[in-house]
Amino acid sequence: MSVVKLIDIKEEVLAENRGLAERIREGLSERGIALVNLMSSPGSGKTSLIVRTLAALRDDYRIAVIEGDIDSAVDAERVAAEGVPAIQIRTGGSCHLSPAMVEKGLASLPLESLDLLLLENIGNLICPAECDTGATLDVVMVSIPEGHDKPLKYPLAFRIADVVLVNKIDVADRFDFDAAAFRRAVRRLNPEAPVLEISCVTGEGIAAWCGWLRDALA
Amino acid sequence: MSVVKLIDIKEEVLAENRGLAERIREGLSERGIALVNLMSSPGSGKTSLIVRTLAALRDDYRIAVIEGDIDSAVDAERVAAEGVPAIQIRTGGSCHLSPAMVEKGLASLPLESLDLLLLENIGNLICPAECDTGATLDVVMVSIPEGHDKPLKYPLAFRIADVVLVNKIDVADRFDFDAAAFRRAVRRLNPEAPVLEISCVTGEGIAAWCGWLRDALA
Repeated sequence: MSVVKLIDIKEEVLAENRGLAERIREGLSERGIALVNLMSSPGSGKTSLIVRTLAALRDDYRIAVIEGDIDSAVDAERVAAEGVPAIQIRTGGSCHLSPAMVEKGLASLPLESLDLLLLENIGNLICPAECDTGATLDVVMVSIPEGHDKPLKYPLAFRIADVVLVNKIDVADRFDFDAAAFRRAVRRLNPEAPVLEISCVTGEGIAAWCGWLRDALA
Repeated sequence: MSVVKLIDIKEEVLAENRGLAERIREGLSERGIALVNLMSSPGSGKTSLIVRTLAALRDDYRIAVIEGDIDSAVDAERVAAEGVPAIQIRTGGSCHLSPAMVEKGLASLPLESLDLLLLENIGNLICPAECDTGATLDVVMVSIPEGHDKPLKYPLAFRIADVVLVNKIDVADRFDFDAAAFRRAVRRLNPEAPVLEISCVTGEGIAAWCGWLRDALA
């Protein structure tokens, strides 16, 4: 009985979320702002990717960052040290960012002077994939140490991705990550999204990622 | 309005879960079976840990494995290749194992001839920590490439852990994981749980982990 009720209410909340996400996307589009949603497991390198992306694009785009976290502000502090506007959203336990949380983040940013918003979602490959944040682009990242079987286990994240990043290729010599098997698994779920290999430590592949992002924003 | 309803229903489901988890724990205890719940991010090495643990303990304990996954059976196939009973629970999207799922897994295992059940939860540091599975022991694992800040970001998992494992120490030379900072962060959340460093590749630390587990099962 209660399970049936739960599903009904969950559907209702999901429908509200979808509507709000759509309104966020339209509102940002009217202002000419792109919202890029970064999703990965804990520790794949989302914050490092943001720092690298800021360095590569900040001369050409006015960028701000919204950081999601359960219960800390360490990522926003690291991003703010780069000198860009950074908002930390603490979800207090929630496993993903909702469009309502994103809307609150947007309300405290100077939108009239921004072109690009980077959104670091909660470290989790499941729940963030289920909840539209209002983003213009969805980026899914894995890292070499996690293994090439992640698309088999977390298919939805790879299905909804506009681009798939493979981070930490600087340590590929120490792990048995099968890049060809990974690409095949992604391709079965998603015929379109490019798969780009990067290292946020050495900078390898960052130019290709930022090139892809520039094209997507154009 | 709908959010208020959602919270009420969620509380109701959580209370049902707690009751069922308690009944699972009592039922297993009466049979002298331990249920060990393994939680980590995707790709930290839960399945590798299970394979190592089977090799170390299978002469002394009758062991079976329950594998949780969103949408694949690759882990159960890997474990079954070791020749122990292995059940795959596919959650079909759910971000954690519930006690109802565990109960179904238990129903298809020969409990009368088992001493130890290893439960691989969904790869996620958030939702599994919120849901009591009925386990006797909760094991939380991180791996070196994920970084030492994980306790700050996913505090609940570390609070409820009976033991904390740090896997992939064989690649510690390639990452800036601060082991002392990690231990301090765990200790602030959890005054009791030992922190054990292991490598499921080289086998380092596996004897200490299995020694801890033997003591906990005694």
